[in-house]
Amino acid sequence: MKKKKKVNAAILIIGNEILSGRTQDKNIAFISNWLNLNCGIEVTEVRIIPDVEKKIIKNIRTLSKEFNYVFTTGGIGPTHDDITAQSISKAFRVKYDFHKEAYKILEKYYGKKKFNDGRKKMAKMPAIAKLIYNPSSAAPGFVTKNVLSLPGVPSILNSMIENCKRFLVKGLKVHSKTVNLYTVESNISKELEILQKKYKKFVDVGSYPFFRLGKIGVSVVSRSTSKIKLSKVHKDLNKIIKIKKIKILKI
Amino acid sequence: MKKKKKVNAAILIIGNEILSGRTQDKNIAFISNWLNLNCGIEVTEVRIIPDVEKKIIKNIRTLSKEFNYVFTTGGIGPTHDDITAQSISKAFRVKYDFHKEAYKILEKYYGKKKFNDGRKKMAKMPAIAKLIYNPSSAAPGFVTKNVLSLPGVPSILNSMIENCKRFLVKGLKVHSKTVNLYTVESNISKELEILQKKYKKFVDVGSYPFFRLGKIGVSVVSRSTSKIKLSKVHKDLNKIIKIKKIKILKI
Repeated sequence: MKKKKKVNAAILIIGNEILSGRTQDKNIAFISNWLNLNCGIEVTEVRIIPDVEKKIIKNIRTLSKEFNYVFTTGGIGPTHDDITAQSISKAFRVKYDFHKEAYKILEKYYGKKKFNDGRKKMAKMPAIAKLIYNPSSAAPGFVTKNVLSLPGVPSILNSMIENCKRFLVKGLKVHSKTVNLYTVESNISKELEILQKKYKKFVDVGSYPFFRLGKIGVSVVSRSTSKIKLSKVHKDLNKIIKIKKIKILKI
Repeated sequence: MKKKKKVNAAILIIGNEILSGRTQDKNIAFISNWLNLNCGIEVTEVRIIPDVEKKIIKNIRTLSKEFNYVFTTGGIGPTHDDITAQSISKAFRVKYDFHKEAYKILEKYYGKKKFNDGRKKMAKMPAIAKLIYNPSSAAPGFVTKNVLSLPGVPSILNSMIENCKRFLVKGLKVHSKTVNLYTVESNISKELEILQKKYKKFVDVGSYPFFRLGKIGVSVVSRSTSKIKLSKVHKDLNKIIKIKKIKILKI
């Protein structure tokens, strides 16, 4: 059996509506969680950019070189501001044209009479693209080299995500353990630093303040591809909690 | 009176917890809305990166050159994974040291006895930094050249945002108008494209599908620094709506 490696991904959110603050993004957390749980792929960068061709091209080129996979969301609908497909074609210098299968799927879905130009546009994509099927509204996403393009509407994106699996090589899953403590960060910062140094190569230890029913606390989150190392960190962490007499919040 | 110009900003979210999907970001929409409404500053790029020094340095250098302002969130607390301040110091090649005023503020807030090393760390920042006061938990944010650094906890960030104003040169406010239509995008895509072409230089016309009580619709959002041009777009849009006999959803 081939040993699994670390595999990473970037998410490129294309959409003025997220940048302007009009729409609250919901896709980042969803894609990131799904990728880690189902494919052992870790999202290590996200960018949100406007519907501007030059910016899309530049970011697709940069990110597709730097990361194993790039997920784009948004800009694959029927309107003039949907320019993801043509921009990716330009980024990879491939033809932008009707995809035969996508055309058939959409023609069947809408019926010949209602298959207007706007709808036909959704069958146009980079010539080398493979389809990501869309069970909720027919218009497919597509894969161009290591770039997977999905729509921006969360409910549709969510329905398509399973169909991305066959294009992805699985990596090492990142496991995480969280302990919620009724204390303040500065009370345990020294101990956490020592803990992080001890397990530097294998475990990431993060600390995040929380507020709950008027009380403040700290979530200590440890993340590692090794369950054994993670257990070791938690044994050490429990010792610290005991010595410091910190109360644990059980959720 | 000096004529206002377009002013833009980037947001750099520093934090593994957002990338991993553990925490849903709330700061992007808040900062973007606040900047546009209060300062006429438009957010035109967002990046989310992990707590990794090399990545922070690289992104600070790139973004601070490319945009008028950069807002960072996260990584300015007392723990080992809070490395924003030292990374920004390195990015600008300035000394990372105790800020006298920040030290005094924190010492007064915690009292000399409880002012431990973790808390003292929050007074360390780039030597040239100016303080962004924090009315909710004392630990200040800071401004290094055109980079404004804020904490990641939304409630604390929100309480500090007004104190950023004095560091910002105001720009032209972007006005927006939204019409929610009971139709599908492909029914109006041709007309919207013509509309966008007609007002290309002055107005951005975007279209976003919505789902409401089982019905689907399209929000048409126009954005411009000119209220007059915006009205013209809406006159044209109303004609389209009338001709096409589309029902408007009033919220």
